[in-house]
Amino acid sequence: MTFEYKNVYVLSSSTVAGPYEAKGPLSSTFDKVFDNLYYGEKTWEKAEIKALEDSIKIVLEKADLKQEKLDLIISGDLLNQITASCYAAKSFNKPFLGIYTACATSIEGIIIGSSIIDSKKANNIIAATSSHNMTSEKQFRNPTEYGAPKPSTATFTATGGASILLTSKKTPIKVTRGTIGRIIDYHQTDPLNMGAVMAGAAADTIYRHLKDTKRDPSYYDLILTGDLGKYGKEILKEMMKLDYKIDISKNYNDCGTLLYDLNSQTEVMAGGSGPVCSALVNYGYVMEKLKKKELKKVLLVATGALFSPTMIFQHNHILSIANAVSLEVE
Amino acid sequence: MTFEYKNVYVLSSSTVAGPYEAKGPLSSTFDKVFDNLYYGEKTWEKAEIKALEDSIKIVLEKADLKQEKLDLIISGDLLNQITASCYAAKSFNKPFLGIYTACATSIEGIIIGSSIIDSKKANNIIAATSSHNMTSEKQFRNPTEYGAPKPSTATFTATGGASILLTSKKTPIKVTRGTIGRIIDYHQTDPLNMGAVMAGAAADTIYRHLKDTKRDPSYYDLILTGDLGKYGKEILKEMMKLDYKIDISKNYNDCGTLLYDLNSQTEVMAGGSGPVCSALVNYGYVMEKLKKKELKKVLLVATGALFSPTMIFQHNHILSIANAVSLEVE
Repeated sequence: MTFEYKNVYVLSSSTVAGPYEAKGPLSSTFDKVFDNLYYGEKTWEKAEIKALEDSIKIVLEKADLKQEKLDLIISGDLLNQITASCYAAKSFNKPFLGIYTACATSIEGIIIGSSIIDSKKANNIIAATSSHNMTSEKQFRNPTEYGAPKPSTATFTATGGASILLTSKKTPIKVTRGTIGRIIDYHQTDPLNMGAVMAGAAADTIYRHLKDTKRDPSYYDLILTGDLGKYGKEILKEMMKLDYKIDISKNYNDCGTLLYDLNSQTEVMAGGSGPVCSALVNYGYVMEKLKKKELKKVLLVATGALFSPTMIFQHNHILSIANAVSLEVE
Repeated sequence: MTFEYKNVYVLSSSTVAGPYEAKGPLSSTFDKVFDNLYYGEKTWEKAEIKALEDSIKIVLEKADLKQEKLDLIISGDLLNQITASCYAAKSFNKPFLGIYTACATSIEGIIIGSSIIDSKKANNIIAATSSHNMTSEKQFRNPTEYGAPKPSTATFTATGGASILLTSKKTPIKVTRGTIGRIIDYHQTDPLNMGAVMAGAAADTIYRHLKDTKRDPSYYDLILTGDLGKYGKEILKEMMKLDYKIDISKNYNDCGTLLYDLNSQTEVMAGGSGPVCSALVNYGYVMEKLKKKELKKVLLVATGALFSPTMIFQHNHILSIANAVSLEVE
């Protein structure tokens, strides 16, 4: 099932990035960067909340949209009880929809927001997300002070907040289609190889999107997955070829491999992850390229590993999901 | 902002309830009950997943809807990473939107699902939710084996799964309006008095709903909040009177006080809570009353405490939100 949107556009987008991302190759595309993981706050959680809050402020400023014209905030993040989203949204005093599909959250927000705008129930909706390297490590893995070594397949949770402001009023960038992901179980159990966990979900969503829209991968100037990392990216290309007989290799890339310089920033191992990883790339770098018409048709596929430590301790698989939207300029 | 829905109806609903709920006054309204918190599974989390999965199966059976006609599952629950929803939805292999506003989740699902159906992008959508007394206690509070005493304001997380099947095809029960909640901060910090935490959110949403729709409380045969419990219920009535000059006392009740017999089931203290608490009451008892036309216009207000143990340890307030939909029969 792929939704077609008639009247949904991007009014503005914003990116607030942390210290590791600021040292990466996309540094110049961010609206704001901070050089310390605490971002002037007492805790990492509060730093994440602040980054998300800042991204919402900036997306409104860039659009020159007064707060009273904003109808709704849709947001989700990796923290238990999507804490960053709830506390960041509080300041804006607007109707709020909390969402969660791990690192596929940003695109889930665009899909829900676009559906509401397209049904003429609202005019201006922000879809936002965040993640923080330390709040994630602390919550999902071991305290970093233990210094547990990681395999080369591990990815690195990106730090920051990012927002997109969707509107019913025509702008150069149109949200054209949205494909909601299915929950995929490829019997993966290794939380340090999320690329392998999520590649199957990306393949399922890309395949269904192309089938539903009767499009060939060449329709797009760029197909961009969320955060598969360098190994997951290769798995996806092979899966598409072997399972679906579709070659996406010509115009395909992964945000997890774009956000950092994988040669010099060796701490990121196989690449970036976390909901803000793809959002930082999509709402900065990709938006700039669309505005300059260097890209005219893009398919953004955010990939999420629905990783629950509790379920892993109970010997279950790690499930995954991928949500996709296409953005087009005329 | 209150949405008006033109063509959204309830095709069926289902309730699967645990042992404490089965002993309560609404027992006869449940589709299925289980008498042991493990529900034949090895862990409480798996029991919760099974209850949610069963409720989805039953809602399809009751509607006599084949699985291929189902377009989308929207679900959320209290577990970190909304685990119950992700693992339960897996079996149905359908597009999935994960959502979270704590105990306000069920109505968030109805609002999103109804918006999608009303925009003619899908015909049949399930909105589901679950909770489990033991998975919640384990995750949010102390191990129950410690036997920590609780004050009389504490509420009791309900156990079960519940689903509603929304459709574009006319049925006797129409989803007419939806009001998305705002995040409310009443400077509450006591996780054992959630009624006080959530009453402010319920008041804000009910007030905005009535204002947006230019309705008086008497428009409804019943205004039903999610899970304020016996003390929160009184706080809400007073807040509405003092802050908004609105008297809701004539046709108002709270699901947390309806699900159990507060006189004989003393273990539930001030009443039921958890996302499934209001869903069990709404999708069983209320639906029966609507079908029999004993109720014709109801306003369902699910109330959620966005409680994060991490944020409490960091001395933050507990935020809250309430989402509302109105259901009407002709």
